[in-house]
Amino acid sequence: MKYDTIKWGDSCALLLDQTLLPSRCVYVKCRDEKDIYSAIRDMKIRGAPAIGIAGAFGVYLGVRKSPARDAGSLIKRVKKACRYLAASRPTARNLFWALERMEQKAMSMKAEPVEKIKEALYREASAILKEDKLISKAIGANGRPLIKKDAVVMTYCNAGGLATGGYGTALGVIFSSKEKIKRVYACETRPLLQGARLTVWELALRRVPVTLICDNMAASVMARGKIDAVVVGADRIAANGDTANKIGTYNLAILARYHKVPFYVAAPLSTFDLSISDGSGIPIEERQAGEVKKIGGRLITVKGVDVENPAFDVTPRDFITAIITEKGIIKTPGRANIKKISQLNRR
Amino acid sequence: MKYDTIKWGDSCALLLDQTLLPSRCVYVKCRDEKDIYSAIRDMKIRGAPAIGIAGAFGVYLGVRKSPARDAGSLIKRVKKACRYLAASRPTARNLFWALERMEQKAMSMKAEPVEKIKEALYREASAILKEDKLISKAIGANGRPLIKKDAVVMTYCNAGGLATGGYGTALGVIFSSKEKIKRVYACETRPLLQGARLTVWELALRRVPVTLICDNMAASVMARGKIDAVVVGADRIAANGDTANKIGTYNLAILARYHKVPFYVAAPLSTFDLSISDGSGIPIEERQAGEVKKIGGRLITVKGVDVENPAFDVTPRDFITAIITEKGIIKTPGRANIKKISQLNRR
Repeated sequence: MKYDTIKWGDSCALLLDQTLLPSRCVYVKCRDEKDIYSAIRDMKIRGAPAIGIAGAFGVYLGVRKSPARDAGSLIKRVKKACRYLAASRPTARNLFWALERMEQKAMSMKAEPVEKIKEALYREASAILKEDKLISKAIGANGRPLIKKDAVVMTYCNAGGLATGGYGTALGVIFSSKEKIKRVYACETRPLLQGARLTVWELALRRVPVTLICDNMAASVMARGKIDAVVVGADRIAANGDTANKIGTYNLAILARYHKVPFYVAAPLSTFDLSISDGSGIPIEERQAGEVKKIGGRLITVKGVDVENPAFDVTPRDFITAIITEKGIIKTPGRANIKKISQLNRR
Repeated sequence: MKYDTIKWGDSCALLLDQTLLPSRCVYVKCRDEKDIYSAIRDMKIRGAPAIGIAGAFGVYLGVRKSPARDAGSLIKRVKKACRYLAASRPTARNLFWALERMEQKAMSMKAEPVEKIKEALYREASAILKEDKLISKAIGANGRPLIKKDAVVMTYCNAGGLATGGYGTALGVIFSSKEKIKRVYACETRPLLQGARLTVWELALRRVPVTLICDNMAASVMARGKIDAVVVGADRIAANGDTANKIGTYNLAILARYHKVPFYVAAPLSTFDLSISDGSGIPIEERQAGEVKKIGGRLITVKGVDVENPAFDVTPRDFITAIITEKGIIKTPGRANIKKISQLNRR
């Protein structure tokens, strides 16, 4: 089976609704920036690179039918759409990176006719999507040497084709090392079960042997000496290498450290945020209590109970063996090597 | 609201069905040893001390209507019932402890008439239940000095009144320190959600402020400096102090160690198994894949995926700050102090 995380469909963006997977494969039609905003907020599309791509198409959808007659007016609408879409989710860097890129594209065309700018914005969003697929492949190829023969790899949440334009970051590393990989342990990833629902689905589609476990079983599996490496994605990486990723990643990093299992982060350079010095500056989204209290619409606890539901946590760089990017591997991440590799991303 | 985990009801044992809590409060009638076996296996009753009590009543139910005419024949039936019930779940020591106690009671009455032995078995099971409530209270009282003023305490799974004859081990410590406790963080405890369903329910009933989190959020909460102590129960404690408890306890112990949070185990002496030298000898129950793959009967992943579902893990003694028992606190648990305190349990 072939699927697209996001694609352009005539006059709308089509997003594979990830809240319904794996039981149903339904594409959501996004006709304007509001549809994109809702899809990101409600996590119909999720994964840092994927929401970046969705955001880019959101900007185009937001101005596509704009009655603006001159470049100045259109650029104002572009900026407005960017501000609006930036409020959909706060943590993943890639969303802001993509919105900034769209805005810059528009700004660079101040002297051009409106229709030409609109067309350029469509092409820019399409380029971000296309490039992202190539970036995933490059991350996969760069990560390959880190995976040894007959490796058993643990992954967390979903950093696969569904989290990107296709292929994936952490799963990209796994897919590109497929013949060396004996088995993948997928942590289910509460509360929204992206591991159980999405990662297991992607691995099964590509016929990679996979074992599903609950998040709290990771230490027990590691203690039995089963795991050779952990590979996860990232939502934002600070200048010093501290990494925000799906809640529970920090748990897993501590467990990996204790069991002497290498812990790899796979992410495109668009995930790096050099404006943030360390992890303490990364905004962490707090999501609705209902995501924890209900599963499949069914209450699993006492109705009025207090809940904390941070969507992300921050793994200090000391726990990260290496960060795998499309431009190479950053071993023992720190300010110097992150700055150096980030400069390769200037276009 | 007042509830009983298990009580005798005329001609049957009544067990509060813990698979239905907190949405429904239903008592299951157990009329023979098979009903008790199923209730333990299906976790309608769970928690190490509670399944010990259920097992004891199971022995009585197994011989209550026996046509045996002499003590020898009846004792044979008692032994058979014990062997049968011992196969219901393999990890919690308390079940075997209770079955051994019932068997010894019968064996000590070889010269007595059948009806008198039957009556003694009923009294023995009732005594185990009654004593267990007192033991919980003693554990609570002994743990009190470990809880500081305005403490925020994290607990895992359910080691409350529902896991015992009443009151609880880990929750016993919390209840007996109630006025000192600012808040309890309850980890939901996948796959069967005993934290979300049972611990939150018990804490809410006793008006202890409680915050529910997913298991993978524990490190994030600890990193924010919120947790003063972790208190958990136990299913079996080896001679050296290594402790089997609900899967995920070992995860949490590693996280607590890293964040310098004291990690307390609260358990009656009937949980200790001096015949097992260390944690590697504790049998760990592997339960059905369906418990992980389905929530509320609904499939949450790809149908045919492989699953591991160990019901327990083993926390090495080095992670345990102290074990709180009914006879006192064992600080930095080891062979010597465990042997010493266990001798106090001889009756």
